Amino acid sequence: MHKISPLAPKTFPSLKAISGLELKVAASGIKYKQRSDVLIVDFIEDFHAAGVFTKSLCPSAPVDHCKTILHKQLAKTLIVNSGNANAFTGKQGKATTDSVAKALSEYHNCTTDMIYMASTGVIGEPLDADKLIYARHNNQPADWLEAAKAIMTTDTYPKLATREIIYKGQPVTINAIAKGSGMIAPNMATMLSFIFTDLSIPAPLMQQLLKEAVEVSFNSISVDSDTSTSDTVLFFAKANEAEYIDPSDTDFNQFKLAFTSLLQELALSIIKDGEGATKLIKVKVNGATTDLAAKKIALSIVNSPLVKTAIAGEDANWGRVVMAIGKAGQPADRDLIAIYFGPYCVAKQGERDINYSEEALSAYMKNSEIVIEVFLQLGDGSATCYGCDLTADYITINAGYRS
Amino acid sequence: MHKISPLAPKTFPSLKAISGLELKVAASGIKYKQRSDVLIVDFIEDFHAAGVFTKSLCPSAPVDHCKTILHKQLAKTLIVNSGNANAFTGKQGKATTDSVAKALSEYHNCTTDMIYMASTGVIGEPLDADKLIYARHNNQPADWLEAAKAIMTTDTYPKLATREIIYKGQPVTINAIAKGSGMIAPNMATMLSFIFTDLSIPAPLMQQLLKEAVEVSFNSISVDSDTSTSDTVLFFAKANEAEYIDPSDTDFNQFKLAFTSLLQELALSIIKDGEGATKLIKVKVNGATTDLAAKKIALSIVNSPLVKTAIAGEDANWGRVVMAIGKAGQPADRDLIAIYFGPYCVAKQGERDINYSEEALSAYMKNSEIVIEVFLQLGDGSATCYGCDLTADYITINAGYRS
Repeated sequence: MHKISPLAPKTFPSLKAISGLELKVAASGIKYKQRSDVLIVDFIEDFHAAGVFTKSLCPSAPVDHCKTILHKQLAKTLIVNSGNANAFTGKQGKATTDSVAKALSEYHNCTTDMIYMASTGVIGEPLDADKLIYARHNNQPADWLEAAKAIMTTDTYPKLATREIIYKGQPVTINAIAKGSGMIAPNMATMLSFIFTDLSIPAPLMQQLLKEAVEVSFNSISVDSDTSTSDTVLFFAKANEAEYIDPSDTDFNQFKLAFTSLLQELALSIIKDGEGATKLIKVKVNGATTDLAAKKIALSIVNSPLVKTAIAGEDANWGRVVMAIGKAGQPADRDLIAIYFGPYCVAKQGERDINYSEEALSAYMKNSEIVIEVFLQLGDGSATCYGCDLTADYITINAGYRS
Repeated sequence: MHKISPLAPKTFPSLKAISGLELKVAASGIKYKQRSDVLIVDFIEDFHAAGVFTKSLCPSAPVDHCKTILHKQLAKTLIVNSGNANAFTGKQGKATTDSVAKALSEYHNCTTDMIYMASTGVIGEPLDADKLIYARHNNQPADWLEAAKAIMTTDTYPKLATREIIYKGQPVTINAIAKGSGMIAPNMATMLSFIFTDLSIPAPLMQQLLKEAVEVSFNSISVDSDTSTSDTVLFFAKANEAEYIDPSDTDFNQFKLAFTSLLQELALSIIKDGEGATKLIKVKVNGATTDLAAKKIALSIVNSPLVKTAIAGEDANWGRVVMAIGKAGQPADRDLIAIYFGPYCVAKQGERDINYSEEALSAYMKNSEIVIEVFLQLGDGSATCYGCDLTADYITINAGYRS
């Protein structure tokens, strides 16, 4: 529909199969025509689930459903549809998730609290449970690329990533898919992402691992400062009750690093597909009073419409970075602040650097990745956040989204 | 430079002279060519000053200067320039305000704490004090319309308003001018506004009056959620030490209402000139737990890029209003919420209203003023905020602002 992001990857990684689970897709016609719009992941072996969800106070019905069943930990299937978010659909919305859970639990001969769901798309339209139940019975096997494609909405390319490590002498795979392009200002998670591994991990440890990794990945990006009602990140790992993992174990630490970098790769993939984006913006804030203060300032910069439009126009308007620091409400001493655009110091001690060169800066702004670094010189707090520029295409995409 | 806002007024009010003050303008060539860019208001009689300023932690040098002298209360002159904000200009910035204050105090034979200043325009560029001192000596008498024009930057029309009331049997005039179009998310005040009256009011009462009126006017609007480093609202009233005013007096209450409505008129005038704006958005939130919670939710709605682009596209995408309520972080019960677009109920009890008519809504969205009303049904808190739509012209205007 929309032109493919200029920041799109040229090729997609090939993901290994993960034993014990099967991928299926279906074309249910909820909104889109002639494409898969339902993804089903069946867990043939036992898998544990962990999840983080939107902090929106008006979450979607599937978010409510997943939150309710998460304590059960065991998953039998995951069903995801695109085109309709089943959000702000009231009693009807809950009736839909209840119907789907009931029908699928009968199909799988399990309890309803083993049926995971997620929906993404238009808010406020009733979602027909029968379409999802139809998809349960009429689908086809899919690979990871097809799975990632089935959950896309305004995304201009599918998002998938993998890590393979050796754990206690055995190969372990982590595969993940995600979707997201607009309404991206994650508040615990962003839009949808599903992560799978064949490593057995106790459920409480999975939850802790996921929460920590989301904080430095999906919770550190913003396309437009708008928080979705449907943000859902689910992590599934093989369940083996005999397994005990020491969180400080070297091999598990290696797994943790791989897991975190996988989520960061997907988070960046979402930003690079930000609606209308032509440039990736990386903001690093150093020397804040705390890490949280640094993150708030970094998000204030990547979310500022005036910073984002200046970058779209390849204008090194660092004065707007000052403005965004000033409005963040976090401790900052104007006369100590230094600001860099890439390798160039544009300002220090609260005023323009004497070596400032408009020519050098203008050349730098032509890059497709712009790095802004801020030094507050107040403490040890630091954070890195990612965003994208704001272009006329963002307006075009969003002015008539429902039609 | 940019095309005039479609929401611009067709005519401008004619403002009466206020005795005891003189308006002058000058073309100093700070940035703009062939237009007035400096406004001078000389107080021939004694005037008190009150002021509210940006809450930015990186305020401009003139904001720092005004804050320092405000306790003195008496004003001799006000000098305002457009084209350069003298913000994030470090020691040079303070040197400029100090030089201007010194030169003007010598000219007026008064102390430097009676010299008020404001600057608006590009951030980070040094501002030459000599240009302002030149303007002090080379200027021409101006009327209120010319005064309002001299302080414009990306504004597409001048902003001025007046009120005339009878106070204790005598006519009293309140005149005000303002400028502002982008970087508008006031946090105590917005951009620049200057208000003058011939009524004598004790300075502490002026300050209280100004603070209260700003809260429901300039502090209830947002163009783009970005807070300026230069926001300044100054109020000047004739100083007559013999004057005592009982704040609960009926005539003073009438003055207060006129004063507040004057500021609200100017605040709306700024929104209607919001960069790229084609529609005015009014958001009223009712039934919140507190007025503050209502205001935060209302601002979350008027600031949402997705709500703003949908309105630009004349799409009644009320699901995005739900999203914006959900992300505001204030108490809200999804299943109690009702939402109206103008006279039309689009959702109640947390789902689409059964009488929802896409046709009626689509027709309503063609209006140039869109009213969104939210009923939370939790308490007595309410607030009204104003914003504008987000169009491709906002991007065009801001992508190359410095060049």
